[in-house]
Amino acid sequence: QRKPPKLQPLFAALLLHSFAMFAFSLLCAKIIGELLKLNDDPKVSGVYLHLPPASLTSRVINTLYPEKDVDCITDMNMGRLVQGNLSRGFVPPLAGAVLSLLQKHDASLEGKTVLLVGEGPLKLALHCLIERNGMFVQSSHSNSNSLQSQVMHADALVLLGAESMEIPSTWVRPGAAIIRCESILKSHNIGSSSRSGLGYLTAAYRAQNVVQSCSRWLQEQQYRPWHLHTLKLLPLNPVPSDIEISRAQTPKPIDQLAAEIGLLPEELEPYGRSKAKVRLSLLDRLHSQPDGKYILVAGITPTPLGEGKSTVTIGLVQAMSAHLKLNSFACLRQPSQGPTFGVKGGAAGGGYAQVIPMEEFNLHLTGDIHAITAANNLVAAAIDARMLHEATQSDKALFNRLVPSVNGVRKFSPIQISRLQGLGIHKTDPASLTPQEVSAFARLDLDPSKITWHRVVDTNDRFLRKITVGQASTEKGQTRETGFDIAVASEIMAILALSDNLGDMRGRLGRMVVGTSRSGKPVTAEDLGVSGAVAVLMKDAIKPTLMQTLEGTPVFVHAGPFANIAHGNSSVLADKLALKLVGQDGFVVTEAGFGADIGMEKFFNIKCRASGLKPNVVVLVATVRALKMHGGGPNVSAGAPLPREYIDENLSLVARGCRSNLRKQIQIAKLFGVPVVVALNAFRTDTPAEIDLVCQIAKECGASDAVSCQHWSQGGRGCLELALAVKEAARQPTNFQFLYNTEMPIVEKIRTIAQKVYGADDIEVSPEVQRKIDYYNHQGYGSLPICMAKTHLSLSHMPDKKGAPTGFVLPIRDIRASVGAGFIYPLVGTMSTMPGLPTRPCFYDIDIDPVTEDIIGLF
Amino acid sequence: QRKPPKLQPLFAALLLHSFAMFAFSLLCAKIIGELLKLNDDPKVSGVYLHLPPASLTSRVINTLYPEKDVDCITDMNMGRLVQGNLSRGFVPPLAGAVLSLLQKHDASLEGKTVLLVGEGPLKLALHCLIERNGMFVQSSHSNSNSLQSQVMHADALVLLGAESMEIPSTWVRPGAAIIRCESILKSHNIGSSSRSGLGYLTAAYRAQNVVQSCSRWLQEQQYRPWHLHTLKLLPLNPVPSDIEISRAQTPKPIDQLAAEIGLLPEELEPYGRSKAKVRLSLLDRLHSQPDGKYILVAGITPTPLGEGKSTVTIGLVQAMSAHLKLNSFACLRQPSQGPTFGVKGGAAGGGYAQVIPMEEFNLHLTGDIHAITAANNLVAAAIDARMLHEATQSDKALFNRLVPSVNGVRKFSPIQISRLQGLGIHKTDPASLTPQEVSAFARLDLDPSKITWHRVVDTNDRFLRKITVGQASTEKGQTRETGFDIAVASEIMAILALSDNLGDMRGRLGRMVVGTSRSGKPVTAEDLGVSGAVAVLMKDAIKPTLMQTLEGTPVFVHAGPFANIAHGNSSVLADKLALKLVGQDGFVVTEAGFGADIGMEKFFNIKCRASGLKPNVVVLVATVRALKMHGGGPNVSAGAPLPREYIDENLSLVARGCRSNLRKQIQIAKLFGVPVVVALNAFRTDTPAEIDLVCQIAKECGASDAVSCQHWSQGGRGCLELALAVKEAARQPTNFQFLYNTEMPIVEKIRTIAQKVYGADDIEVSPEVQRKIDYYNHQGYGSLPICMAKTHLSLSHMPDKKGAPTGFVLPIRDIRASVGAGFIYPLVGTMSTMPGLPTRPCFYDIDIDPVTEDIIGLF
Repeated sequence: QRKPPKLQPLFAALLLHSFAMFAFSLLCAKIIGELLKLNDDPKVSGVYLHLPPASLTSRVINTLYPEKDVDCITDMNMGRLVQGNLSRGFVPPLAGAVLSLLQKHDASLEGKTVLLVGEGPLKLALHCLIERNGMFVQSSHSNSNSLQSQVMHADALVLLGAESMEIPSTWVRPGAAIIRCESILKSHNIGSSSRSGLGYLTAAYRAQNVVQSCSRWLQEQQYRPWHLHTLKLLPLNPVPSDIEISRAQTPKPIDQLAAEIGLLPEELEPYGRSKAKVRLSLLDRLHSQPDGKYILVAGITPTPLGEGKSTVTIGLVQAMSAHLKLNSFACLRQPSQGPTFGVKGGAAGGGYAQVIPMEEFNLHLTGDIHAITAANNLVAAAIDARMLHEATQSDKALFNRLVPSVNGVRKFSPIQISRLQGLGIHKTDPASLTPQEVSAFARLDLDPSKITWHRVVDTNDRFLRKITVGQASTEKGQTRETGFDIAVASEIMAILALSDNLGDMRGRLGRMVVGTSRSGKPVTAEDLGVSGAVAVLMKDAIKPTLMQTLEGTPVFVHAGPFANIAHGNSSVLADKLALKLVGQDGFVVTEAGFGADIGMEKFFNIKCRASGLKPNVVVLVATVRALKMHGGGPNVSAGAPLPREYIDENLSLVARGCRSNLRKQIQIAKLFGVPVVVALNAFRTDTPAEIDLVCQIAKECGASDAVSCQHWSQGGRGCLELALAVKEAARQPTNFQFLYNTEMPIVEKIRTIAQKVYGADDIEVSPEVQRKIDYYNHQGYGSLPICMAKTHLSLSHMPDKKGAPTGFVLPIRDIRASVGAGFIYPLVGTMSTMPGLPTRPCFYDIDIDPVTEDIIGLF
Repeated sequence: QRKPPKLQPLFAALLLHSFAMFAFSLLCAKIIGELLKLNDDPKVSGVYLHLPPASLTSRVINTLYPEKDVDCITDMNMGRLVQGNLSRGFVPPLAGAVLSLLQKHDASLEGKTVLLVGEGPLKLALHCLIERNGMFVQSSHSNSNSLQSQVMHADALVLLGAESMEIPSTWVRPGAAIIRCESILKSHNIGSSSRSGLGYLTAAYRAQNVVQSCSRWLQEQQYRPWHLHTLKLLPLNPVPSDIEISRAQTPKPIDQLAAEIGLLPEELEPYGRSKAKVRLSLLDRLHSQPDGKYILVAGITPTPLGEGKSTVTIGLVQAMSAHLKLNSFACLRQPSQGPTFGVKGGAAGGGYAQVIPMEEFNLHLTGDIHAITAANNLVAAAIDARMLHEATQSDKALFNRLVPSVNGVRKFSPIQISRLQGLGIHKTDPASLTPQEVSAFARLDLDPSKITWHRVVDTNDRFLRKITVGQASTEKGQTRETGFDIAVASEIMAILALSDNLGDMRGRLGRMVVGTSRSGKPVTAEDLGVSGAVAVLMKDAIKPTLMQTLEGTPVFVHAGPFANIAHGNSSVLADKLALKLVGQDGFVVTEAGFGADIGMEKFFNIKCRASGLKPNVVVLVATVRALKMHGGGPNVSAGAPLPREYIDENLSLVARGCRSNLRKQIQIAKLFGVPVVVALNAFRTDTPAEIDLVCQIAKECGASDAVSCQHWSQGGRGCLELALAVKEAARQPTNFQFLYNTEMPIVEKIRTIAQKVYGADDIEVSPEVQRKIDYYNHQGYGSLPICMAKTHLSLSHMPDKKGAPTGFVLPIRDIRASVGAGFIYPLVGTMSTMPGLPTRPCFYDIDIDPVTEDIIGLF
């Protein structure tokens, strides 16, 4: 049930703010300045300029936004009036008043002749209006030879600039209406004597225009099917390279797309011409609008080559928005830039299901990962610098530097007070601290061997995996072993993905634990005094980036936490914004990294728990290739040619793969109470029999539906069947539930995931891991959800066990906490957090044409 | 002398491209798509829609840009016509034709009555036009009762929709003109019989509108004084903090500023609402426009507190653009983000001379430094990964991986062919290489002890100054000592600042030397195969960023090479774009880092040599504080209170400072043949006598003028005197010359700088330095200009020698080459390339308000 919009308060504000009156003496520049402010003020629905005619220059008049020009004086609104385009413009209030008087005349004037005498734009406005209302219009002027004859024939007479015009009453036909309009300025003075009461009526029509302006504005905020200008695809065969396909399509200007999906101009921050950040204020504006349907794309356990979840996600929204005309949004992760130059290439989808321009998607985007890198490394620099300063200064010297006397006054900054309170010291006067308190405050006393915070770069730089820092003489021998991770592995990335608003993000950034003090206490970014600065660095990154698919449908790209050690899902905020934008009949399609056992499980238990959102459908992506592997086919590895089993029809391998891995992944999704649609990402080598077999078994295993998709070679058209299946499945009632209650003990939560999701018999927890769990419980982290760090290449912890392994015990080798992000992550194996470059990285092929600026060699 | 614009080719293009005819059968969406393309096509000056009326929906019509709507069918142009705003709209061709026929009637119709019979927008258009041309208009319609009487009174008759209208000829007054207009669609068919030849005339008027559209477009490309909407300043006393001042001023939308200074919409890439990148295509468009005057702001030798060059630069353009109405542009360096969180605070100017929003200026900006960081570190990762792969593979394995067989074909990528050619191997078939050639190609054979390339971060992270990398077991013991610099110290930053276009930058990136092979050959980024990818990462960074001052005047922010080890000047491209935009009577004010002995010398000898630009005036910034220091005052240091000498009047210290350092710096500027204006940046404590004394001595020492400035407390108004002095000085003829010829031997170039600029007796070159110089000569780097790495705190190499030291020998302690950037840099002392964080960094005060999103504590 859609709630009615909150009209009342807006309307009150409108009545208070709608008229902006100006003193006569303001200069044009000043008037323009004021108009610019009124234009941008969402509380103002209408502006009328009560100004001396000399100051109403064309530039002044046309500065006003037409949608707020309730007096219809801008060129644009006058044009709309003349062209009869009144769904967007306004009737000038005076003209409206005159028309209304004519219509209320004793004898109906329909089919009768109205004579307009005078000049100027108002006359033309009246001309159109009266004609459109079924009267005949004649036009004349006070000096015309034929004026008398015209007046004698007229059934009604409108005198414009009436104060200087006299028509002998003998000319006028008996019973004819006479309306005298004084010059605009005078007529606005409602108090003055107006022979026909036209002044009051004009004011009333102006007020009516303001109401109309406001209701149009409200209308725009309502849910409606989008009128997208879609981009046509003419797919080629064979399918060209991704960059060629991307470059061949001209994206719509991003502000056009934004307007089409109901974003207000002030909610958009463009970055170049084809991407823009969207402000979070949108969530307030659309607060009462119901959400659309929430669709998760997950996958079966993949081969090392990947099975195409991103392309299915993009193909699906292309089908829904561009072909079925359903409002739909894809929410994607921002890829790390590092691998783009290593082995992997881009991540903007592929073939005819891509986000464009793909090079902007893959490189820099709107700088969010750069912001994370800067923020992460500021924390790291703060840690090492602080340890150095603590090691080389007395308590007193430290305290005096931390709380310096500025112009004779010594005081704590708010972040220092926050630390004091954390220490249980409830004082605000620096002079009142005891020496013990001074020491407790000034010394974080970080244990160098227990710093967990790493630096990050968004480059595949394997030599930074393990390094020693502080070897310059200026660092006085305070060397320390540490390392760099790839930027997307930063806890700040996980925080970005899980934050609900700026305040929430600020709080999480403060809670990040960077290490442990020598006395065993966690030390946070707030303790370092750096979390405010980190939030400032992240202030733009929190806004999702709008882009478009090859068919011109909207996409949010936002956050991309490492699926290895974090939850591997795009941001909560992008999903929330998109759910409001598509509206109740629309669809938001979001993607979870890795196989469903990892990405989907974390999506449900971590992301949905953080967001409070409930998914409606899971799309499970499978390929014949991966199913054959699970059915017992030979190894598949990147770079090596694909064995024959994967090229020739082999129904028994397919069937075995379906009945093991696919069945298990469907069951996992159903554990959470969400219907599953299987999307078979079809390859050229798949036979009809193989495809049919997969669809048949998938349905036997509990999928609501199972269809094949050809988006890679055909774009949205190739995903129509999937789109219809998803639409149908989304009608089913869901019974979404979490797999575990966070209040369960940490070990029980891990065991639940291992047994119910992975199919393990049990878990094995080493004494060292148990010791850390005890420590987390002691610190109050016991009720955080669990984020498993497990290989994605098997349901088990053993990458070579395909299908649906059973009879294994999952070893928990280590356990860590991302307290700011808000999860505990047990490590089942060693997880690389820094990729490397091969002997011949992708960059050998990448270059830019200096003349056309075209990028070459990205894929 | 201004050259006439190249009208001919544009005009030809216009005649070829001006009419776009559409088939009847296209769908509206398709029409809109085509219209969007025509809108954006600069070769198309006018579009007319020859389409069936049903397809001419309001949406279709109003998609067309009004400036190309030569038929005047958009709402906007119809409104302009009605309102008489014809400087921007068009006369509808048919209306123009009718009017012209009326005007050519045998008897003049001035003061006579023209009767319009019919309906629709065209009638209204004619109504306005005819009235404005001195005739009286009457309006009627074919069914009117009084039609006969009106016709009989009319001196001319215009019948609209004439094909269905018959007026008995007996009604018509003898000699009256009759013009019949067929419906628009038919009248466009020039070939059909048109009773009055109106069809031909209409086509002619349409062509005339196209010409008008084109000449308006050309007009916009011409030099003209800007009509800037300036932002008013109401300076407070005492002056609030920088962030408070910045936040109190609402910046203009950046697209508005761009339009005001003559940028075309397609030349702008907005980044949010208050900054935008400007495309380099501008340089082509304004190719024939003469440059404005080129003003350099340099300073005397500063105290460690800085003497306000940036504020003078900004104050000067505020005065010129906002007060004197002279087109002017400031070109500033982008500051490193690191120090913003350390000691220094922001760098957006200060007080009432700032770039706004200052937080966007200081943080991230448009991501250029992030791009440099990514590009620099990709090179670093490529170096170490390559060394590892070479150390662990045979020649053959390396070669097979570097030139893999893809679908049975083995070929070199273009960048590999470039390396082969560098090795003197002119082959393109991988199979044809000899084993020796394979080895030479596949092994860069980098000497780990001779890698000069550092990694960078834009964070003050002192613990990265010296590190050991490669300590993880995956790197197989290939550890190496190296370090990180602050990002702005990257050679890529220097390249960005000196590049002239994308191709030039690409070339320089390829020439960057990263180290030396074991056989003593330089190894470049091109050899690593990474320079194309680096250029791709830098493709947006090459475009300067447009922002505005507190008074709404334009500013370019672009590049900020470290003044310590690079040339410390903003980019060549920003200056070039700005010089075109201000036009011949305008001014571009650019700033050089450090004192004039360093920043200005490098500006002339390196930057101007690279750009080919000739400066017109040097503004030399001085403060009474710094002059007193040079006159023998006590030490000035950051953090410590200022000694009394600097607060009380002390004319003798001032005089001695002027006659030593100021005089010397003026002389240096004059060495290059450029007039000097001294700008005394006045402080509250300066006395009138001190100010007068400085100005008097400055003029005695050869300055064209010397004035004091109060921009910090008053904004542009406080810099008016300086602006006038600069304007006057720019009238003087200049005799600009370089200090040395690059063909001189390296040692001679260094000696020339040391003696003529610093005042040294001689230089001292160690055998080690001489050995490196010999190596550079051998490698062909001997004719690069020299970029001295010297302290900025003294004219000598000894920071504590103030005034104008003499009698010293300048020791050259080391020498290095930035081959890509294109200079050799001798080191006179140890230069820190990585700042640190103090005990209490600025970040303690920085935070964000989660509700208002206001940033707190930046300064």
